[in-house]
Amino acid sequence: MDRLTIIKVGGKVVEEPESLNALLDQFDHISGNKLLVHGGGRTATEVAKKLGIETKMVEGRRITDADMLEVVTMVYGGLVNKRIVAGLQSRGMNAIGLTGADLDLIKAHKRPVKDIDYGFVGDVDDVNPAELRLLINENVVPVIAPLTHDGKGHLLNTNADTIASELASELSNYYSVYLFYCFEKRGVLVDPDDESSVIYDLDLALFNQYKNEGVISDGMIPKLENGFRAKMKGVKEILITNPENIATGRGTRLV
Amino acid sequence: MDRLTIIKVGGKVVEEPESLNALLDQFDHISGNKLLVHGGGRTATEVAKKLGIETKMVEGRRITDADMLEVVTMVYGGLVNKRIVAGLQSRGMNAIGLTGADLDLIKAHKRPVKDIDYGFVGDVDDVNPAELRLLINENVVPVIAPLTHDGKGHLLNTNADTIASELASELSNYYSVYLFYCFEKRGVLVDPDDESSVIYDLDLALFNQYKNEGVISDGMIPKLENGFRAKMKGVKEILITNPENIATGRGTRLV
Repeated sequence: MDRLTIIKVGGKVVEEPESLNALLDQFDHISGNKLLVHGGGRTATEVAKKLGIETKMVEGRRITDADMLEVVTMVYGGLVNKRIVAGLQSRGMNAIGLTGADLDLIKAHKRPVKDIDYGFVGDVDDVNPAELRLLINENVVPVIAPLTHDGKGHLLNTNADTIASELASELSNYYSVYLFYCFEKRGVLVDPDDESSVIYDLDLALFNQYKNEGVISDGMIPKLENGFRAKMKGVKEILITNPENIATGRGTRLV
Repeated sequence: MDRLTIIKVGGKVVEEPESLNALLDQFDHISGNKLLVHGGGRTATEVAKKLGIETKMVEGRRITDADMLEVVTMVYGGLVNKRIVAGLQSRGMNAIGLTGADLDLIKAHKRPVKDIDYGFVGDVDDVNPAELRLLINENVVPVIAPLTHDGKGHLLNTNADTIASELASELSNYYSVYLFYCFEKRGVLVDPDDESSVIYDLDLALFNQYKNEGVISDGMIPKLENGFRAKMKGVKEILITNPENIATGRGTRLV
């Protein structure tokens, strides 16, 4: 099977012009098929604030009422996505920006209300990569915004890590998929203040131990849970690292 | 050659939920290949206002400074585009939302400053429909936002009527193209207050006469000039009408 590299980037990396340019330069050096999944939460929070819309987060996840859905549709689907597309085009990569609604790529349902009402947040049901594969096979580089749809005309906000792992899992049926979660740090750290404390090989037992000990916490937990799920579904390699180490392959490897 | 219907919609039609739904229902009834080009100026003005950004228009065209470029990227590329895509998907059409940056579809250059500095407004240089045709031939329905790019990493704001006529002209090399400009009225009117005064057949001589007499004025002039240019480049039929008359084919026909 052909290799497909999926890069997920979130946080400051994708939202500040300088680090975004550095990322796109790194991305340019990846050979073969590639696909980028991005976040944009900081910009969404900023735009929401300017529009007088309050951002509410629960356990690192955004509560998405109707107004906030408009904001993330604008920011993820428009501003952040199209900036990346234009930046890739300028580097000679034939990028296309997509949400889960485009090409019916990712169908989801609105998360049922239990303790918390997350609002218009989507849990993924189905990835339909038929036309996406057609594009990838034409050397097109898909750039995916973290939005899905319910097939009934509604867009939904879906976590970008989840989008990346769902796409990686489904596309493992057709490609040898290498999934990189990129963020500011060099990997999962034992000591968050010490960049040299990267955990290089992380298996499920060690993950559970670190989780219980509180070494791994907060947003890193769902990211890693997503990663291990994707690993079990056939994704060839999963690495958590910073953009500088896409080329070296150094960082935390899920094993 | 296969038939391709291109519908350009702007104004209130595309920006109010009820009229948008009516439009998408009409659009659903078009058989064969189809493509939608949309505007979104009212929403852009509204969002800009909420963000404290003043909208300046010259001869119906938006002055697009850096802040306004962010707004139109969010509103055209994100909010309006993805709402339409989700709405078409819910009706069983496999829509994909695109700007001119996606797939390198429409390259433009920043309009040179003469009397007026329009800012980040793009004049079209080149339409590259290779991957677009691939998608159309797979029964995908492209939904095009009025944004272009300069190939150097910059997005540009480009009039939606122009986008529609440029796409129609280029695609006439591959399809028998029917181009509909849809807006609130039943066609070009001799008396703007009388919906029954539709000019059914409009040729260039009559257009110039009406233009000189002031019967046709304002935004209708560039729309018609775009239309006549597209007609001369091989677009099979060009009609100016409202969404209700897409099916009947009644309205102002450029001959």
